[in-house]
Amino acid sequence: MSRFWSPLVHTLTPYVPGEQPKIANLIKLNTNESPYGPSPRALEAMKAATTESMRLYPDPEALALRTALGQRVGLSADHVFVGNGSDEVLAHAFQALFAHGDPLLFPDVSYSFYKVYCGLYKLPYRMVPLTSDMRIAVEDYTGPCSGVVIANPNAPTGIALELEDIRKLLEMHPDRVVLVDEAYVDFGARSAVELIRDYPNLLVVQTFSKSRALAGARVGFAFGQPDLIEALVRVKDSFNSYPLDRLAQAGATASVEDEVWFNQTVQRVMASRARLSEGLKSLGFEVLPSQANFVYTRHPDRDAGELAAQLRSRAILVRHLKGERTMAWLRITVGTEEQCQTLLDALRDCVLCNS
Amino acid sequence: MSRFWSPLVHTLTPYVPGEQPKIANLIKLNTNESPYGPSPRALEAMKAATTESMRLYPDPEALALRTALGQRVGLSADHVFVGNGSDEVLAHAFQALFAHGDPLLFPDVSYSFYKVYCGLYKLPYRMVPLTSDMRIAVEDYTGPCSGVVIANPNAPTGIALELEDIRKLLEMHPDRVVLVDEAYVDFGARSAVELIRDYPNLLVVQTFSKSRALAGARVGFAFGQPDLIEALVRVKDSFNSYPLDRLAQAGATASVEDEVWFNQTVQRVMASRARLSEGLKSLGFEVLPSQANFVYTRHPDRDAGELAAQLRSRAILVRHLKGERTMAWLRITVGTEEQCQTLLDALRDCVLCNS
Repeated sequence: MSRFWSPLVHTLTPYVPGEQPKIANLIKLNTNESPYGPSPRALEAMKAATTESMRLYPDPEALALRTALGQRVGLSADHVFVGNGSDEVLAHAFQALFAHGDPLLFPDVSYSFYKVYCGLYKLPYRMVPLTSDMRIAVEDYTGPCSGVVIANPNAPTGIALELEDIRKLLEMHPDRVVLVDEAYVDFGARSAVELIRDYPNLLVVQTFSKSRALAGARVGFAFGQPDLIEALVRVKDSFNSYPLDRLAQAGATASVEDEVWFNQTVQRVMASRARLSEGLKSLGFEVLPSQANFVYTRHPDRDAGELAAQLRSRAILVRHLKGERTMAWLRITVGTEEQCQTLLDALRDCVLCNS
Repeated sequence: MSRFWSPLVHTLTPYVPGEQPKIANLIKLNTNESPYGPSPRALEAMKAATTESMRLYPDPEALALRTALGQRVGLSADHVFVGNGSDEVLAHAFQALFAHGDPLLFPDVSYSFYKVYCGLYKLPYRMVPLTSDMRIAVEDYTGPCSGVVIANPNAPTGIALELEDIRKLLEMHPDRVVLVDEAYVDFGARSAVELIRDYPNLLVVQTFSKSRALAGARVGFAFGQPDLIEALVRVKDSFNSYPLDRLAQAGATASVEDEVWFNQTVQRVMASRARLSEGLKSLGFEVLPSQANFVYTRHPDRDAGELAAQLRSRAILVRHLKGERTMAWLRITVGTEEQCQTLLDALRDCVLCNS
């Protein structure tokens, strides 16, 4: 507390990201990073860009990257926005598109940063409960609102909506933006990007931090019709002209161009997810049907917080979220085959030694 | 214009950065980048960090970098904030520290992003005129205010204030933050950082984009007492947990540790600045006494806009800012010796062929 703070600062409850430990050799299954490194072409492009030209500002419009991203899905660069991680893209979108007086709607169990942005921009919001089986029921997203935000697949549940559900939301709120946060879409869900031509109120947000294994480079992006993109650009250019550095732009562009690596890596994670889910079930865990690079799981007789602590003592980090509806669950990132096996062995011990 | 935009978006007048041309072989003296590449140790550190670990999020607190920055000036890491370029640091500071109802005070001729931030955060402001000789007169910064922002040296003039003037401002407004934007301080001005222990209302902002030749990496920072830093952290953690990617953190930290390179490069720019200033004066230009890596200059008989256009036709970019008080002037980045000579030769032609 300080007399120098703007009144807003006293009201903020910042987002708390998963632990980024400085200890080596931990099995880190708590922040949904890729267990495999990025495309070698991305690493090469970043190294090649690490020259004396680092003295120069990057392209403030990141045109090469936006063009590559657009081409991949059949959209021109004016349908693409890029930012310093999808968190920055989301922040700009909340400020640029959701301040219409009515509450913003999003699920009660979802990415917990959404309500933090509402605090930062003083946006009223209403959290719509997931159903008892932890699913989003789009018919519950009714009434006057400033917009709708849906993570698809949802986090931390991993459950994906059908495209028809997204379409329903878009048609329920034709004068409000429906933001679909597709951070995890590449692991088996269907992207809403194909609906952009038909729906001027659709903004799709994605990231390089998960399926492209570039969390360390901080690149996120959005697809939408040009007037939505322009709103984001106007806010961005009133905040920071150059949010993406030269190396992030170079690496991300090269990554988009490496479709072979991308498909292989995603398939590999999905195969491990299937085996991890089966392994957890065989230990008596309930596992939600995930289309993300993590699974959401609980044990009928074991306290999730205690399990997380026991795993931590064995150098395995998973995410346990406080909160009434999430405290029984663990969110576990899909690691390598070997990491998943180590995790399952540790959980078997935990479950057995306590029984 | 769009029905989807938040009302704020319609009101924004974004900052327009200097041109970042995609044409090669231009002599680029328009955005105050360093004419020399960054510390080789910074480049090495960035390359060394370009590994499969890019799949992992960076340290959200950038502790190694903050510690290195603090050590250099005798402050602990809790006195240091880092962001995605000093533009992001400034944006957070405006939101976190200057929303107290009264106008924010800054010079009428200064970094033009200041009023853009005020637009973004709906902060009232009052621009205090420079004196007729383009200087900041601190005694003019009186009256109720939400804070004071001073670029020191000022841009685009290059003129620096004495430390006594900064101290005066701090004592005139003990309950408001005085933000000293020291983007250009390393080229001969004196930093206010030594006043931080004595003044809880002082925030000093610096950047890696100028004297450290890392504009392409996007790293800025602030020094202040811990409660001011905490205000920035709270806003940052409500906006984007990881604004600095792994490579930016690695490169910036290595740069801070290379004092020899730093001193040599800064001295080299200052020596070129002296010769450039003399050369301009010998062509009849008025040159303000610069302590930055650029000079601010005008010719008694030549239109500045026309001169800038003539230089552009010779593949030399300089910055000409519109506006009543700046339209007669050119802001010219100090280039290499060779670039400065090419510029002087071109200007000689321009001045002679029009006479």
